[in-house]
Amino acid sequence: MIIDIHGHYTTAPKALEEWRNRQIAALGNPAAMPKASELRIGDDELRESIERNQLKLMRERVLDLTIFSPRASFMAHHLGDLQVSSTWAAICNELCYRVSRLFPDHFVPAAMLPQSLGVDPATCIPELVRCVEQYGNVAINLNPDPSGGHWTSPPLTDRHWYPIYEKIVEFDIPAMIHVSTSCNACFHTTGAHYINADTTAFMQLIQGDLFHDFPTLRLVIPHGGGAAPYHWGRYRGLAQELKKPLLREHLLKNVFFDTCVYHQPGIDLLARVVPVANILFASEMIGAVRGIDPETGFYYDDTKRYIEASTILNAEEKKKVYEGNARRVFPRLDAALKAKGK
Amino acid sequence: MIIDIHGHYTTAPKALEEWRNRQIAALGNPAAMPKASELRIGDDELRESIERNQLKLMRERVLDLTIFSPRASFMAHHLGDLQVSSTWAAICNELCYRVSRLFPDHFVPAAMLPQSLGVDPATCIPELVRCVEQYGNVAINLNPDPSGGHWTSPPLTDRHWYPIYEKIVEFDIPAMIHVSTSCNACFHTTGAHYINADTTAFMQLIQGDLFHDFPTLRLVIPHGGGAAPYHWGRYRGLAQELKKPLLREHLLKNVFFDTCVYHQPGIDLLARVVPVANILFASEMIGAVRGIDPETGFYYDDTKRYIEASTILNAEEKKKVYEGNARRVFPRLDAALKAKGK
Repeated sequence: MIIDIHGHYTTAPKALEEWRNRQIAALGNPAAMPKASELRIGDDELRESIERNQLKLMRERVLDLTIFSPRASFMAHHLGDLQVSSTWAAICNELCYRVSRLFPDHFVPAAMLPQSLGVDPATCIPELVRCVEQYGNVAINLNPDPSGGHWTSPPLTDRHWYPIYEKIVEFDIPAMIHVSTSCNACFHTTGAHYINADTTAFMQLIQGDLFHDFPTLRLVIPHGGGAAPYHWGRYRGLAQELKKPLLREHLLKNVFFDTCVYHQPGIDLLARVVPVANILFASEMIGAVRGIDPETGFYYDDTKRYIEASTILNAEEKKKVYEGNARRVFPRLDAALKAKGK
Repeated sequence: MIIDIHGHYTTAPKALEEWRNRQIAALGNPAAMPKASELRIGDDELRESIERNQLKLMRERVLDLTIFSPRASFMAHHLGDLQVSSTWAAICNELCYRVSRLFPDHFVPAAMLPQSLGVDPATCIPELVRCVEQYGNVAINLNPDPSGGHWTSPPLTDRHWYPIYEKIVEFDIPAMIHVSTSCNACFHTTGAHYINADTTAFMQLIQGDLFHDFPTLRLVIPHGGGAAPYHWGRYRGLAQELKKPLLREHLLKNVFFDTCVYHQPGIDLLARVVPVANILFASEMIGAVRGIDPETGFYYDDTKRYIEASTILNAEEKKKVYEGNARRVFPRLDAALKAKGK
């Protein structure tokens, strides 16, 4: 079985974006604020948006299952207040849940949180609980920068974030650290802000001692860990200067990287420096990079091709990257699969 | 000949830091502001600070020459105003110049600019001219984020920066894009801010068309290009989506990466994805990562070892990385060497 642990609902019917645009247009004008009930998307529309896109590509690439969360760049936690984010998160999470019910063999939901700039993350707990208990979500996405590129929240190791960690440890689900759109002109959303956030998160975790307080907390750093594997020597060296334990001891029982690295040399580097147990198959398809690589003739984001072609990973290791590690890092996914005899 | 194109004067005598601390303490209180003339550092002190540190390691590693600029993390362009930055830059640049006169065979200076948050970069021109014409500087360091981690200046492709580009094109010297200390708690200076800045700069250059306006402008992205080589597929794909030419055409006649990547797999990746003509040997020694790698028994920043051990680069290519490319990208260095018969 091949599990893609990082997919977003980037292909939702246009009505979703239109509703969101109405919500944004009504910021500061409560009377004009659209109601959640005004958004109506039928099952057929959902089905079509998936079958023609993600599921089509999953079938072509022979991928079995995607952990599926709302579109990351649309989370936009910097817009509006807690009420705005709460309504928006509830809508997006419900859609991913419905996709998972329409295609129970192919999609399992992960939740976005109703984070809001300057608001205590504890306010996200009710939506988080609802998504896990009622919608069967197996993970959450946690945005370390709800400002959208201004980085005004405390580092991930700060107690500010502890209410989230306490709850996901209780539920035994991991968090993927994933920012949303950049509203800072310096940072291209998917070309700079995403990758910088991954690198930043990794370094914050080196500096802190978060897993001393939460020994069972599991965090996934997407996009191949940002710059971390490429600069693994730098990070080992910085941990050493900060008098931290070796990275393997300090972070690698709790931190995992996905394989959203869109060329063979990058995947080879990842496999060479990061222990196999910490690598989770993913493509973030359909996402930031949708084109076909003229050098290979295949989609950039067809990351399975790079794993298949890897001479660093043997067959058993590839199985871990594709399935075994995901079952371990996402135990609620494992339980759901086992309940189906998988 | 082996040229290290990226070294900072991180080992300057303590008096320098003490003077700077007095300057910072006097911000907002002109009467207490120390004068530049109050800083006195003798040649013997300079000599000792170099001989016991950078030069010692250069001799051990058999490196011939370092392009030497003021300590990047001390530039701190977010502190004070233009006058404060101007005095500080003049002092730091003069020290690097003096080092280059004391050790003319081993150090060639590159200038920091007196950038100041919210001030037109054109104000840096007089110091830039002085450093090139009077001090023989062969390059500058340009800070794309004078705020120190808040990223409040326009992208590097904005006309805001054009006065600098016009001047360095006229002088035919390259700029290394190098941030200074981070005063944003989210970003560790050398573990996040430096690497993020490199990644950010590269993506800004993809988005823009800077080299259409400045076909001969040359920019060096340090620290192995941040995350760019590791995510080369992502960047090729994003350029494609933005309808830009292939990276080779769009950027690689003007953008160069150094080899400040502190482990073998990272250097191997760099050599695998980036054309040899765009790779410049560097170690940023003595800099961010000063320890000895327990996995190898050698300094993390002894990057020559990784180049030597590379099986991707042949002997001729290594020579380009060590010397030939630097002579091409820093023509004033080449001219200075040739004038000495080297």
